[in-house]
Amino acid sequence: MKAEIITIGDELLLGQVIDTNSSWLGQQLNQLGIHVHHKSALSDSRQAILDGLSQASMRSDIIVITGGLGPTKDDITKLTLCDFFNTQLVQNEKVLSWVSSIFKMRNLPMLASNNQQAMVPENCKVLWNRNGTAPGMWFFENNKVYISMPGVPFEMKTIFEEEAIPLLKQTFSFPSIVHRTILTCNIGESFLAKKIAAIEDALPTHIKLAYLPAVGMVRLRFSAYGDNEHELQETLIPIIQKLYETVGEYIYGEGEDSLSQVVGMLLKGRRKTLSTAESCTGGYIAHAITLQAGSSAYFKGSIVSYANDVKINQLGVDPSVISTQGAVSEACVKAMAEGARKVLKTDYAIAASGVAGPSGGSIEKPVGTVWIAVSTPHQTICKLLNLGDNRERTIQRTAIQSLDVLRKLLLEETAEAHGI
Amino acid sequence: MKAEIITIGDELLLGQVIDTNSSWLGQQLNQLGIHVHHKSALSDSRQAILDGLSQASMRSDIIVITGGLGPTKDDITKLTLCDFFNTQLVQNEKVLSWVSSIFKMRNLPMLASNNQQAMVPENCKVLWNRNGTAPGMWFFENNKVYISMPGVPFEMKTIFEEEAIPLLKQTFSFPSIVHRTILTCNIGESFLAKKIAAIEDALPTHIKLAYLPAVGMVRLRFSAYGDNEHELQETLIPIIQKLYETVGEYIYGEGEDSLSQVVGMLLKGRRKTLSTAESCTGGYIAHAITLQAGSSAYFKGSIVSYANDVKINQLGVDPSVISTQGAVSEACVKAMAEGARKVLKTDYAIAASGVAGPSGGSIEKPVGTVWIAVSTPHQTICKLLNLGDNRERTIQRTAIQSLDVLRKLLLEETAEAHGI
Repeated sequence: MKAEIITIGDELLLGQVIDTNSSWLGQQLNQLGIHVHHKSALSDSRQAILDGLSQASMRSDIIVITGGLGPTKDDITKLTLCDFFNTQLVQNEKVLSWVSSIFKMRNLPMLASNNQQAMVPENCKVLWNRNGTAPGMWFFENNKVYISMPGVPFEMKTIFEEEAIPLLKQTFSFPSIVHRTILTCNIGESFLAKKIAAIEDALPTHIKLAYLPAVGMVRLRFSAYGDNEHELQETLIPIIQKLYETVGEYIYGEGEDSLSQVVGMLLKGRRKTLSTAESCTGGYIAHAITLQAGSSAYFKGSIVSYANDVKINQLGVDPSVISTQGAVSEACVKAMAEGARKVLKTDYAIAASGVAGPSGGSIEKPVGTVWIAVSTPHQTICKLLNLGDNRERTIQRTAIQSLDVLRKLLLEETAEAHGI
Repeated sequence: MKAEIITIGDELLLGQVIDTNSSWLGQQLNQLGIHVHHKSALSDSRQAILDGLSQASMRSDIIVITGGLGPTKDDITKLTLCDFFNTQLVQNEKVLSWVSSIFKMRNLPMLASNNQQAMVPENCKVLWNRNGTAPGMWFFENNKVYISMPGVPFEMKTIFEEEAIPLLKQTFSFPSIVHRTILTCNIGESFLAKKIAAIEDALPTHIKLAYLPAVGMVRLRFSAYGDNEHELQETLIPIIQKLYETVGEYIYGEGEDSLSQVVGMLLKGRRKTLSTAESCTGGYIAHAITLQAGSSAYFKGSIVSYANDVKINQLGVDPSVISTQGAVSEACVKAMAEGARKVLKTDYAIAASGVAGPSGGSIEKPVGTVWIAVSTPHQTICKLLNLGDNRERTIQRTAIQSLDVLRKLLLEETAEAHGI
């Protein structure tokens, strides 16, 4: 089963947009056991799309297409698909009433161009787009599947997950693949690889390991290929167990867990509350926590103290700490965390203060110097980080590091409470 | 002059790595006036690379290839290029002494696989890689240029900028392209298209318009193609002017501007300060503002009041407002914004309170109901939004809408001050 991905849009060729859709689709198809062997990006030109489709149909069994389905003139994918399949656009009543209802709900008038969204090639099956007005489309011609979806990532992802994957599973029989993804943080890819070299070398040939690095974290994806799903799952158990024994201290979760979600669950299970006091992270830690649905059960709030007088007035940091040791110091970040716990009346608090850059660094405290603190009912732990000169990544890494310190403290407290 | 980009590597097809090289190359080529009309990602397979090269040679004049030049077994680009050009690898003495000197400097032994780095196809011109051991290669065959570079971004970029661009300029004479990108927010793509239909219809054939939508915003990219860069720039001026006259209220910037950066510049220019009081956005507005380097010049901080008692104790919201009208209400968000201005001592404040979902909605206030407020020294403006049921997007859209309200207020105040 060979698949390929086609993305359509001049903006991709001009480099105005970085294509994240095709790597997401590559991961999804791979997890289904479908081998992606080609990707291409085509311009918004009828001939380019026709050529691309015809080459793809000679190479691949499944062709996944994104982009060019908007209501404006430069979006020509739908018409070109009609040409390619030698068919015509017809109005889909279900889509039309859906599009109308969206405009009604938003109290907006329906334009002629929006009506166009309900026109689809006669030979397609509509893939429902519950996040937007451009429907996805499924074509099955000459034993090949063509899936066309809008390029807006959140629309595309929902259509693919909820509509396309079930249809693919109905249409083809795939070999069994079992994936288990173990999530690690605060250890680099090459160090992790060295620590688990023995596990990797001992993997049977039907189990593959992939390292998927992101900012501050590395996901380890084990994929077992075979006929019997249950057997594959069983084979993975002792391997994953060994992994926990070897690098357990870096593992914060599995699958789709996020670190803030894991911390949230630990807090919720203990009926404890959290707050943050943020300087260099500017609210990002609070944002990471509150991105989780249901976080109001344990998160009470944050004081983003970008200015020193906010640290002093709202968090109760002693002005002399700032004047003698600076805002980026152990003493300041400790006072910020303890202040947040006190004024926001929470069991735990995270604080961060650092030099995110690009300016503001000194020889003593270069750009990337960050102090973090985690305060609990029993103690306040502080940690000095050196995170380099990329502002955005420094902010993200500070959040990951501080949430991970809190996670470990919560686990330790439980172990102590149980006398382990 | 038509160019295409080929990236080589299974990791790109599996989605393990997001390809940023090709968008960077797209920008570079475009700026030279070279039209990139195709991109493809190929697997580390001899046949796939041969097929890809032969198709590219039929479509394009310039073929830029990245990846597959490392010292490991899966890197086969160089050998395949030899097959494609019907030539053989020869040792390049200059590269060999460079590679040896790198290993000497790093105090590492030179492996046989590293010697291989100095072997290049006989028909190529070496493009110097001063950041690594894998040289770039330039081929000129049948009036077509092939440029092969390593996939490591910083090596590739230096080779392209320092070696490939000068050679391209020597080899070809390029037409000019001028781009101008206008940034709009808080208007949907189709509404924008309708409003500017007359402008779009009147565009001369050598000027193209593309709509590039993202969450809460649409970028309009005008591209003018011709011989004389200055003339193209001049041609665009009245068109852009017309655009401002027609949809100026939605335009927040141009090029690479971000909304929070534009608001930041307006505040900085007026020596004014800003704070936020955030409930449903959970710190995201503060994060968007502080992602901008230098934001400490105008941003003092935020009170993220996720819990009602934080709204009451830290922002001074009257408890009776919450008990009678709820936390998601005009009165509450108004009190939050005014409270933030007062306690954080800023000229302006943004506040947001809403139902981000997925739970917490009611018939009266369904998921996606958000109240925002912007408080200034003269007034507090409140606005009710309905943003749908995606938690993350509701948070992002709330930030965009509230920053845009502030942006407009700042511009109005200036206009008033100047008696316009």
